[in-house]
Amino acid sequence: MFDDSLRGALKKFVEERNWGQFHSPENLAKSISVEAAELLECYQWGGEAPTDRVAGELADVLTYCLLLADRLGLDPEEIVMEKLEVTRQKYPVERARDRSAKYDEL
Amino acid sequence: MFDDSLRGALKKFVEERNWGQFHSPENLAKSISVEAAELLECYQWGGEAPTDRVAGELADVLTYCLLLADRLGLDPEEIVMEKLEVTRQKYPVERARDRSAKYDEL
Amino acid sequence: MFDDSLRGALKKFVEERNWGQFHSPENLAKSISVEAAELLECYQWGGEAPTDRVAGELADVLTYCLLLADRLGLDPEEIVMEKLEVTRQKYPVERARDRSAKYDEL
Amino acid sequence: MFDDSLRGALKKFVEERNWGQFHSPENLAKSISVEAAELLECYQWGGEAPTDRVAGELADVLTYCLLLADRLGLDPEEIVMEKLEVTRQKYPVERARDRSAKYDEL
Repeated sequence: MFDDSLRGALKKFVEERNWGQFHSPENLAKSISVEAAELLECYQWGGEAPTDRVAGELADVLTYCLLLADRLGLDPEEIVMEKLEVTRQKYPVERARDRSAKYDEL
Repeated sequence: MFDDSLRGALKKFVEERNWGQFHSPENLAKSISVEAAELLECYQWGGEAPTDRVAGELADVLTYCLLLADRLGLDPEEIVMEKLEVTRQKYPVERARDRSAKYDEL
Repeated sequence: MFDDSLRGALKKFVEERNWGQFHSPENLAKSISVEAAELLECYQWGGEAPTDRVAGELADVLTYCLLLADRLGLDPEEIVMEKLEVTRQKYPVERARDRSAKYDEL
Repeated sequence: MFDDSLRGALKKFVEERNWGQFHSPENLAKSISVEAAELLECYQWGGEAPTDRVAGELADVLTYCLLLADRLGLDPEEIVMEKLEVTRQKYPVERARDRSAKYDEL
């Protein structure tokens, strides 16, 4: 999913600080939830938020997602594609169109 | 960040179901938190979790992150790179090395 | 669940600031997730955290839970008791003892 | 905060299943985030949700909050009252009235 320059930059950033020791999959999963909530906080009281603030929080969520994928040897683009296939099955166009209901309520 | 095939596949998936109407930035931010918690649930009681389960949940978080980036006209790779630069400033190697403390406690 | 002094104090706090206008059930649900993540952040990198810091974050989660219950006309103690009954059925002692598995995996 | 019958019922429920072994503060904090997100999911696509569904999810959040308070020897009602005092200072009526801004932006 990422070109090597980004993956390399993240890898270098972590190695320089020797932070790999803190990046267990469990700690990274917690970090993704923590950052996702900071993103959600942009919309805590309504639907409007400054894009630059949202961009910064979204970047934090993505960063930890990439670190977790890396840690587990997963290719981000590949797993998104694979999951999309699963979701496609669960939400057939004819039944899911114009509906936000969960697959088991369609 | 994503090659066009993935962005195109996501775009097509949403358009076929006409789900853009549900994908306000606020709803996507909520969705990212919801999926991040399903990822966290893999590690609710301990540090071990089956990689394929984690991969599926991580894919859901990434998918909504990509949809939000797309919705706001943000380039995922670009915002991650930009935020990395900010974080680099906040966590200088000499002070942050081997420490998980927050920048304001370093 | 709460003696009237606490419920009254919360009610007065919100009314004095005229914050009821922001406290839709949806916004309160978002707020509970935001505060839950600040609580989680205490344990982001490990199992130890200063109790006074945890107490403050836990208090924030509880406060929004009480405001949401109040908003929906629910009695916190009552719904906890009712849910406990449901959970008791889903996790029979003989099968759930010493296991953290989800009911559908017991 | 809770009358003894509720605290006793929760204590008995956990002891019968010998689940105290899983209830480290960290695991309970993760559980609160997981349940908070299931509550948020009720409002994932909009502001309306069936009250009985919300009640069940809110009960789960409260239950784990009570277990964490118990585990740390904290009195739920007391910490909520103490935090309310702190928040009162940070959000003086004259500046906070009718505003959802964070204290540092008031």
